[in-house]
Amino acid sequence: MAREAFTVSILDALRARSLDGPGVTRTSYMAGEQAAHDLIADLARGLGLAVSVDAAGNLSARLAGRHPERPAWITGSHLDSVRQGGNFDGAAGVIAGLVAIAAMIDAGLQPDCDIVLMAFRAEESSAWFVGRHGGHFGSRAALGLLWEGELDSATHVATGRSLRAMMTEAGFDAARIAAGPPILNPADIAGYIELHIEQGPILENRALPVGIVTGIRGAYRARNASALGAYSHSGAVPHEYRQDAVFATADLVMALDSEWSRRRAAGEDLVVTVGRFSTEAELHSITKVPGQVDFAIDIRSQDVAVLDGMEAFLRASARDIEARRGVSFGLDPFDRSTPALMDAGLVAALQASASGLSIPFLTMASGGGHDAQDFADAGIPAAMIFVRNDKGSHNPAEAMAIADFMQATRVLANVLCAMAGET
Amino acid sequence: MAREAFTVSILDALRARSLDGPGVTRTSYMAGEQAAHDLIADLARGLGLAVSVDAAGNLSARLAGRHPERPAWITGSHLDSVRQGGNFDGAAGVIAGLVAIAAMIDAGLQPDCDIVLMAFRAEESSAWFVGRHGGHFGSRAALGLLWEGELDSATHVATGRSLRAMMTEAGFDAARIAAGPPILNPADIAGYIELHIEQGPILENRALPVGIVTGIRGAYRARNASALGAYSHSGAVPHEYRQDAVFATADLVMALDSEWSRRRAAGEDLVVTVGRFSTEAELHSITKVPGQVDFAIDIRSQDVAVLDGMEAFLRASARDIEARRGVSFGLDPFDRSTPALMDAGLVAALQASASGLSIPFLTMASGGGHDAQDFADAGIPAAMIFVRNDKGSHNPAEAMAIADFMQATRVLANVLCAMAGET
Repeated sequence: MAREAFTVSILDALRARSLDGPGVTRTSYMAGEQAAHDLIADLARGLGLAVSVDAAGNLSARLAGRHPERPAWITGSHLDSVRQGGNFDGAAGVIAGLVAIAAMIDAGLQPDCDIVLMAFRAEESSAWFVGRHGGHFGSRAALGLLWEGELDSATHVATGRSLRAMMTEAGFDAARIAAGPPILNPADIAGYIELHIEQGPILENRALPVGIVTGIRGAYRARNASALGAYSHSGAVPHEYRQDAVFATADLVMALDSEWSRRRAAGEDLVVTVGRFSTEAELHSITKVPGQVDFAIDIRSQDVAVLDGMEAFLRASARDIEARRGVSFGLDPFDRSTPALMDAGLVAALQASASGLSIPFLTMASGGGHDAQDFADAGIPAAMIFVRNDKGSHNPAEAMAIADFMQATRVLANVLCAMAGET
Repeated sequence: MAREAFTVSILDALRARSLDGPGVTRTSYMAGEQAAHDLIADLARGLGLAVSVDAAGNLSARLAGRHPERPAWITGSHLDSVRQGGNFDGAAGVIAGLVAIAAMIDAGLQPDCDIVLMAFRAEESSAWFVGRHGGHFGSRAALGLLWEGELDSATHVATGRSLRAMMTEAGFDAARIAAGPPILNPADIAGYIELHIEQGPILENRALPVGIVTGIRGAYRARNASALGAYSHSGAVPHEYRQDAVFATADLVMALDSEWSRRRAAGEDLVVTVGRFSTEAELHSITKVPGQVDFAIDIRSQDVAVLDGMEAFLRASARDIEARRGVSFGLDPFDRSTPALMDAGLVAALQASASGLSIPFLTMASGGGHDAQDFADAGIPAAMIFVRNDKGSHNPAEAMAIADFMQATRVLANVLCAMAGET
């Protein structure tokens, strides 16, 4: 119960530092995220961990093992949030690592190798950055996975400044990131385990507290898609002369909907979202045929063949609609992040741990992207533990029960101990 | 040619007073509209006409007839514009009336009855006012056609103030409008003839300079429609748990599209527009299933049975989609303006006049709403003359040739002379 009270006190302190209307706002590379990093760093120092901050601003808190030269185990997640998001997305994983390490210390355990808690920067990059970018800046920067030019092509929605400028102005060393080599070297890392709230309703609906993740869906995205038609009078222009951007985009959305249904029926893993769809506020009117729609498409699957098939379908549908409706679609730049498989051995270890602890779990895919996928992309064994969460993530209503969190954290601690050769 | 130079000088002066970026902005009941009224009033006084302004701010300029006790003929249009609109929509009709009256004066003619040029306020109410309202405030206020409470339920987008406040602050007498009786009494009015640019491409495509209007399409409108679903994670939430407001609204738009195609194929008069369609800028994201869409629907036809049929179809489709997609549509308040027929005798007179003057014309419907429909609604014989216009209206590219305007104005003057018993 002391451990639970410790957890609640951290979550409460975190929430208090980032309250914004009904939710919390911890903007990437800005004050809200920094306040969270400061809190976790203080708590880690309080536990006697060696705290450091890397060139991208990621926080590391190291529990020294008996053989610090051996590859270390990393656990953690991110501390930023979406605008007016919930308190648990990201932060739960960092706090779980802290609680797990605190439990080991309290139990008088010392692992063979180092165990490092990491809090990554700017995982919620889709909420805060526009322009050409691959997201998850903190983990990808540390692992040397940023694209050529990405430090400059990603720009912050709140400031209009580039990722490079945001990093630099927050006190970090973007030039070091650009120059390389990667801060995290796969040869020095035994594996990465991340706890995170589930971002969907599956565990809640199955009445299971814990999920063990087999893989993370890849995402193919048109971040800044548009349909260009022509504005004209809503009453006076007959059908044959219209170039209606709303009808054209609605047609494209329904084409994606049909193809999604077809592939679902065939048992394929797929979700399709058009999260933004907006006529132009300065020009649209109930009495104008709309001449422009700006929209965004997010297509996710565990199967890269499904993603490739959906991209081909999307482009063919767009061409067909362009010909029929006299509009022009802009779908590029089109970002492709491929699915990431979790390490089979780690998945088995997590399953065995949960079973051994009599904690009910579901083996499942992750629909959301996570820092764990970047470790997998870098060739480092990675795994994830999900915690049941009633109301979805990225909103103030995120509802993670502390009892569920404690069960998932026991699985995390148990596997970290086993993997790190704790004796 | 002198008449043509006079016309061009007025249009140029009007444009110069309301330039805004690429177009002109003459905001209803604000400075841009007032500047246009001031210009026309000055010109009318220069012609020796008796100028007055009514309680709604409408301008009247009266050419006295030999028998001022007889019912008068009115010609005119409106002087406001949409934001960054074109210079001709509305203004062309007011200037045509001025030019026609100037020509009569120059020719030494005096009609039997008065001929009154009117410039109405706030015809572009769809562009400037939100809330429950029936549009065309100037003409409807003068004719006693405002709805109960409409002075207060209509609010200006630029100021957030009610129509009552906008009228009052512009120096007019909203209380007089509210108290009645109507300023324009049908018993005192022989008829109304309005010249206006065509707002669609039909005359341009038929290569005809002039249109003679048989009727004005009615408009059924959901001005502030919404689809409410639930925000959730774009990657983590499976299809069966989504309440996607964009997919639902796109589905509704495509249902309207199909029904429109079916009715077009059956020869029915119909246009359907969804001029606004927007996810919430503060909450939407590429990584969120969208929880809300705000949109607007404008359905127009000359046939009230078609409008009623489309409304029934819209409501049934919305219920079906709500059941299938877990969203809730808000379509009310739903405004209904019924089609307005032009006076058959006036239409015949305009056709005879154009034929007599060897001016090629098309007999056609008006897709746009106009002040003329309010005269028809009040039981006053009304008719309209369209002028060919290449690039549609409500945009800076409106392209009315002065030669076409002069031909249409000759038809107007000719019929006014004939109707007003000019001798």
